[in-house]
Amino acid sequence: MAVPPSDLHRHFEHMLKDGRGKDVAFDVDGQLVRAHRCVLAARSPVFAAELFGPMKEKDTAEPIKVDDMEPCVFEELLRFMYTDRISDDKRGADKNAATQHLLVAADRYGLHRLRLMCEAKLCRGIDARMVATTLALAEQHRCTRLKDACLAFVASRDVLGAVMETDGFKHLAASCPFVLVEILDKIVRGKSQ
Amino acid sequence: MAVPPSDLHRHFEHMLKDGRGKDVAFDVDGQLVRAHRCVLAARSPVFAAELFGPMKEKDTAEPIKVDDMEPCVFEELLRFMYTDRISDDKRGADKNAATQHLLVAADRYGLHRLRLMCEAKLCRGIDARMVATTLALAEQHRCTRLKDACLAFVASRDVLGAVMETDGFKHLAASCPFVLVEILDKIVRGKSQ
Repeated sequence: MAVPPSDLHRHFEHMLKDGRGKDVAFDVDGQLVRAHRCVLAARSPVFAAELFGPMKEKDTAEPIKVDDMEPCVFEELLRFMYTDRISDDKRGADKNAATQHLLVAADRYGLHRLRLMCEAKLCRGIDARMVATTLALAEQHRCTRLKDACLAFVASRDVLGAVMETDGFKHLAASCPFVLVEILDKIVRGKSQ
Repeated sequence: MAVPPSDLHRHFEHMLKDGRGKDVAFDVDGQLVRAHRCVLAARSPVFAAELFGPMKEKDTAEPIKVDDMEPCVFEELLRFMYTDRISDDKRGADKNAATQHLLVAADRYGLHRLRLMCEAKLCRGIDARMVATTLALAEQHRCTRLKDACLAFVASRDVLGAVMETDGFKHLAASCPFVLVEILDKIVRGKSQ
């Protein structure tokens, strides 16, 4: 007889949507987001230290401030922590930007698997318009596989002119100028092969 | 690039073993077992009502009494609720008895998938020594597929003599005598085919 597949993630997703038993609140850019301390601590070593460690926030009745993050990114982060999944409801540049923000958040809270999921998603979505921004992100967050994929894209296709006209490229040139050398190096090596 | 498989169940298993954030205690046959209210409520409608409903236990600092259940069964039940898995460390008759107890517990707490998992496991492990006990359980808990598998086993193989000598058969005959008619019916229909 057949047993239906695991519904753990569905139950925990419901638990996140439902208000029941939530015992910690975050103030994310003025928006109040509530969650369960035990789940956050089970999933993220950073939350574990923040909520249960010796440096824990004294009064968990008071919302914990989360700086430099949009509420929708924090909510997606929570969704991942409860379900091990990320949603796929955005398209194109929006999706790419959302995934970049999520990767930054994953890195901040020590969510290794989420970081890899974002990295894989960004690898699949590389295009001329976003590649420079993605490359800067990969450099800043030490995502070697994503960085390699971006460098290979720029060097192997006839897209460099278009890439250099993007704002992302200006940002890349300003924030990680040494990556430009790596691009040049990749192009030279590609030509000599 | 490859993303490793979901580790949600591993994290929640660790959360169950770890004492952190547990906010409810059960007294199971004199043994204290602690857990997280939000997880139990997310997984079991019975716990949801007991812990968060209008009939909820007043003082969750006081251990909640769990009657008629061995601590090891309650612990296995908790393990399932946190991980969607059951352990497989027992063999033979012990394993069969443990699975039967777990099925009873699953039924009591409304864990539909666990009930099906136990039912499937018992279907796979039917033998002459245990089949009568399993059949009585299937009858009492309305497990139609398990009941059919037991009836088919008894009727189709040359085991009835051995089965009738087991204590399980005496228990079956005393508690569900009408099932004996179903066994006879199955044998008659088997012979006429």
